Amino acid sequence: MTSPEILHEHVKNIFPIFRSITGKGIRQTLEYISQRTEGFSISHVDSGTEVLDWTVPDEWNAYGATIRRTTGEVMIDWARCNLHLVQYSIPIRARVSRGELEKHLHWLPDQPDLIPYRTSYYRKDWGFCLSAHQYSQLTDDEYDVEIRTELGPGRLSYGEVLVPATMESGNEAGEVLFSIHCCHPALANDNASSIAIAIEVIRTLQKRPDRRLSYRFVFIPGTIGSITWLARNRDRIRHIRHGLVMSCLGDDGLPTYKQSRRGNAAIDRYAEYLVQTRWGGKVVPFEPYGYDERQYCSPGFNLPVGCLMRSPNGQFAQYHTSADNLDFVTPAGLYASFGFIMDLVTMMEQDFHPRSLCPYGEPQLGRRGLYKTIGGGDEKDPHSAFDQMTLLWVLNLADGDHSLLDIAQRSGKPFPAVAAAAGVLVRADLLARSAWGQVPMPPASVSSPAGTSAPSASWT
Amino acid sequence: MTSPEILHEHVKNIFPIFRSITGKGIRQTLEYISQRTEGFSISHVDSGTEVLDWTVPDEWNAYGATIRRTTGEVMIDWARCNLHLVQYSIPIRARVSRGELEKHLHWLPDQPDLIPYRTSYYRKDWGFCLSAHQYSQLTDDEYDVEIRTELGPGRLSYGEVLVPATMESGNEAGEVLFSIHCCHPALANDNASSIAIAIEVIRTLQKRPDRRLSYRFVFIPGTIGSITWLARNRDRIRHIRHGLVMSCLGDDGLPTYKQSRRGNAAIDRYAEYLVQTRWGGKVVPFEPYGYDERQYCSPGFNLPVGCLMRSPNGQFAQYHTSADNLDFVTPAGLYASFGFIMDLVTMMEQDFHPRSLCPYGEPQLGRRGLYKTIGGGDEKDPHSAFDQMTLLWVLNLADGDHSLLDIAQRSGKPFPAVAAAAGVLVRADLLARSAWGQVPMPPASVSSPAGTSAPSASWT
Amino acid sequence: MTSPEILHEHVKNIFPIFRSITGKGIRQTLEYISQRTEGFSISHVDSGTEVLDWTVPDEWNAYGATIRRTTGEVMIDWARCNLHLVQYSIPIRARVSRGELEKHLHWLPDQPDLIPYRTSYYRKDWGFCLSAHQYSQLTDDEYDVEIRTELGPGRLSYGEVLVPATMESGNEAGEVLFSIHCCHPALANDNASSIAIAIEVIRTLQKRPDRRLSYRFVFIPGTIGSITWLARNRDRIRHIRHGLVMSCLGDDGLPTYKQSRRGNAAIDRYAEYLVQTRWGGKVVPFEPYGYDERQYCSPGFNLPVGCLMRSPNGQFAQYHTSADNLDFVTPAGLYASFGFIMDLVTMMEQDFHPRSLCPYGEPQLGRRGLYKTIGGGDEKDPHSAFDQMTLLWVLNLADGDHSLLDIAQRSGKPFPAVAAAAGVLVRADLLARSAWGQVPMPPASVSSPAGTSAPSASWT
Repeated sequence: MTSPEILHEHVKNIFPIFRSITGKGIRQTLEYISQRTEGFSISHVDSGTEVLDWTVPDEWNAYGATIRRTTGEVMIDWARCNLHLVQYSIPIRARVSRGELEKHLHWLPDQPDLIPYRTSYYRKDWGFCLSAHQYSQLTDDEYDVEIRTELGPGRLSYGEVLVPATMESGNEAGEVLFSIHCCHPALANDNASSIAIAIEVIRTLQKRPDRRLSYRFVFIPGTIGSITWLARNRDRIRHIRHGLVMSCLGDDGLPTYKQSRRGNAAIDRYAEYLVQTRWGGKVVPFEPYGYDERQYCSPGFNLPVGCLMRSPNGQFAQYHTSADNLDFVTPAGLYASFGFIMDLVTMMEQDFHPRSLCPYGEPQLGRRGLYKTIGGGDEKDPHSAFDQMTLLWVLNLADGDHSLLDIAQRSGKPFPAVAAAAGVLVRADLLARSAWGQVPMPPASVSSPAGTSAPSASWT
Repeated sequence: MTSPEILHEHVKNIFPIFRSITGKGIRQTLEYISQRTEGFSISHVDSGTEVLDWTVPDEWNAYGATIRRTTGEVMIDWARCNLHLVQYSIPIRARVSRGELEKHLHWLPDQPDLIPYRTSYYRKDWGFCLSAHQYSQLTDDEYDVEIRTELGPGRLSYGEVLVPATMESGNEAGEVLFSIHCCHPALANDNASSIAIAIEVIRTLQKRPDRRLSYRFVFIPGTIGSITWLARNRDRIRHIRHGLVMSCLGDDGLPTYKQSRRGNAAIDRYAEYLVQTRWGGKVVPFEPYGYDERQYCSPGFNLPVGCLMRSPNGQFAQYHTSADNLDFVTPAGLYASFGFIMDLVTMMEQDFHPRSLCPYGEPQLGRRGLYKTIGGGDEKDPHSAFDQMTLLWVLNLADGDHSLLDIAQRSGKPFPAVAAAAGVLVRADLLARSAWGQVPMPPASVSSPAGTSAPSASWT
Repeated sequence: MTSPEILHEHVKNIFPIFRSITGKGIRQTLEYISQRTEGFSISHVDSGTEVLDWTVPDEWNAYGATIRRTTGEVMIDWARCNLHLVQYSIPIRARVSRGELEKHLHWLPDQPDLIPYRTSYYRKDWGFCLSAHQYSQLTDDEYDVEIRTELGPGRLSYGEVLVPATMESGNEAGEVLFSIHCCHPALANDNASSIAIAIEVIRTLQKRPDRRLSYRFVFIPGTIGSITWLARNRDRIRHIRHGLVMSCLGDDGLPTYKQSRRGNAAIDRYAEYLVQTRWGGKVVPFEPYGYDERQYCSPGFNLPVGCLMRSPNGQFAQYHTSADNLDFVTPAGLYASFGFIMDLVTMMEQDFHPRSLCPYGEPQLGRRGLYKTIGGGDEKDPHSAFDQMTLLWVLNLADGDHSLLDIAQRSGKPFPAVAAAAGVLVRADLLARSAWGQVPMPPASVSSPAGTSAPSASWT
């Protein structure tokens, strides 16, 4: 059973590993996930492989990095904080002047205690990140700089797990894509938090016997990873029905859901519904910046992929600094994000486009035990999960054009009540499931087809 | 000539008849209508006939019902108020304990003087309705209960009259359906009021020589009646262009128009226009509860049928009680409802989708006497019913896509002025009538077709 | 180089010419334009020619008009103000009673110093316009009236110039129609102002080497002129992509843009954008009254033609009076209108529907020098005209469905920045131009087509 503590424990385990977009650290992280989930696979793609408009870069590994006084005194040591090294720094061992060194230093004048996070994946360079306090102490004329890294042909690695549907769902078949970047080193919220939550979402889903949808989780280095995955999975893309990038999910802010490029995809509406009715927080429109939704929502793919965060990228003071640490991420924040995602999954599983099997006039509910019996009397609800009106609304709008969420929003009835009522009606052979949109109504001059019921699953 | 008093007189005549969904009372009511209208027909459907998802029930007739003390003193007597008997009560003659009797009694604790109205059409049971005062006097240990009813194979009856179009209307052909339930016993507003008004609307329409549309009135028992009518008229349904359920039309409340399921059908827009511009009151959205619009607006039919009421069902204290009596229904309320419905009819008759016969550039109105003659001078209107701008608006939007109501709403001109201007333009061979929507414009490179004028009817 | 003074000088030159819808004055005005532009042509259409629903009227010329006392004293003389004569007055030389004369006089009781402007093109009549002061002095019993005019078969004349596209624009080909009425006599704002501005817009466009669109300017008598032009150019109409009626463009009011009948044509959106972001003023909805947009926006043509004014017709005190003179029209007002129109032209030239040539995932901007190089650092913009986000927005929405204006409005980025970014992307072979709407995306399972770049024009 997932708990706040289990989630935080994962973050603690993942945090210290030194990750980059390639190399040993990301593979070690993928191994951590693999050990805790079933069916996890790790893929490797050779450097130099062309992926969409990009090329898989050389593999990079780091072993040490220091700035020393000429006296030998260590001023900056990567071993103390792995943010000190600009990612993809090339090796160097040299005595350099203060002026030369300056060109390779990154610090934050406005946040003097914090070490920033910087990368130079695609321009060969080296550099150090340090706090403004540390920077102010570098007053000598010369320093000894040593960076022990390897940059050369190797492999880009990513992990993937599919949790397949367990129920016959016919034309409802579809995949849900969760995408989690795992290329950042010692940043707890961005993105150890999401790796931790994803592990527990996978484990929870794998225990469910009643999955209508399939769930694919990809753990990738940012940008180049999603581009690589998309390049290698073009034929799979058309199965993606909903998608979510998970990022920065462990702080104490309220949820922030960033819409897909479409803005009105089902997942956009589910997330907005949850924000409005249960979780609070806010919905922000798509913009072509942020995380891997940039790739999934590029115009050629235009996938229904949103992004869930708590405090959004770039909008919290700790973002991309050494303050994004294990204190910033809380068990409660992680657990609330887990809950939000499981609620999204429940809506994905429960929603469908009902089509009435008795669309001409109301069905006689009374003889099926679904209607109050004394006409004109008080409306007594025989079912606990929904009232009589909810049942009537579902039947009335069950034309194959309306989803259960459409029905909930038009009727003003809660989605869970609508879903419960629809389940009862499916079991009573009064509704057929039609997930992907319009199903033609039988013509008015023939009688209704016999019901072909499907078992209704209750997701909670 | 219809007057407030005539309408109230009908209500007084209809009120005392003991009606149910089957039986002698409803047939007597239909006979009353038949005697006052031309071409009225009464249909009978045998018990047990399958109609859509339902089965026509057994016929029920009542002859007496009492609760007596064992001393013989009559405590409750159906002869005094025909609401005392739960509709479709099975016969019984027995001495029953106070406890047993209690299970069969219906009263209103919050309205101690009123007798409620209750039914048990589809569950075999018996029962009495009484006031809370009456209930409090039933303190003996035992009572003699007698219900003299007959429930057995028979017929369901409904009435129908078609007032056919009198004018050639080509592709404008269409029917207007009015549906009035007449199964309720001594309830004056619900629904003796609508029966009374419908009689007078029929009589008024039958006198008009200039009907473009046909009007069908169905007088039916609620729910099972509309279901039966729909089941037997599936081929006719596609002709229904507008429809209105009439109910609770005699009290002093302002009009309440409940939209069809579509929400934007022409009748929805007409009714909203009348509420906003002339009659006040309110428009409420469709919901799958209420009167027979539930059946007409079931997803398979999805007919453009709204419902006109004054105080809406369930929202006035007298609803379904003995207080819905001849005092509650007023001549003024009845007459205002009659006026609203005749205004609706006028809009239905007058509205069409004009298509300009001179769509390329403005027609030269001056040589037709339709334009002010001194350019730059004051705009003097040669027509009393509309101004120059109204004429120009109608011509400009006469593309077959816009209805006259569309034109009224875009231009801000009153619908009657727009209709008058359109009539003048039809007579001037500048407009063709095209009721059902788009008519293609002649191509720009050929000359306009010669006008084929139709006489313009003035409905007021 | 156009200047405020040049524009005002044109107005001064045009103002004194006595114009009507036919005759020597309008031809003299067209000659004035012809002498200042290249390729200007004047067309003549014989009286009696049928044009759409109309007939070209007889030609009218005036030589003198006076009202004299029987003593010979001149009370009203057309030579002093050419508004004195009602346009299309028939000749008369007679002594008339005060009462008879009165029927032929037009004055403004509320503006006693001003002479109104009146016409009687299509009803044979004669008349004088005079100030209320002048009117009050006509107290004699009889007057000698002389009107020396000629009304008889002749020609209607209009002028036209096409400034053709100079650049290959493939499916972007299209014409912009500017329509200017030039039938009014001594009215400076209505419409000498627009004639003056149109001359300078033509001259400016003719100097541009980089025109993607063609520009057609028609100088016509009001109503009958646009009807004649439309009748004779039916095959050309389908090429019109944007159109603008220019009228009353010289006063000091803020701009007023009147929408086309469509209301959402591209030119409607461009004008609204300029009003909102640069020029102030207001946008008003279409109505079928005003200037020649009435004809262009008649339902058969329904062209995307708006109307630009400053103070709108009929809404300024000087309208159609002798106060619409050279003082009312200012160099600054004229020049601002010129600027607004050139801004519209710039938007027409710059806007297109970009289609990404690299739509699957983001293109790797870094290797093209279009992306900041140190990830996570400050966003430093290598381009002055737009920022990084603008570039990303253009790429993301470059699906052939979105115009640059759509992108500007969705992203909140200024249109000029979006246009500049799009130009850079076209030059980088990342965008194709597709002006007229949707271009299908290549299928997801094949690689992107090679870029076929077009040079990007910078319009300012």
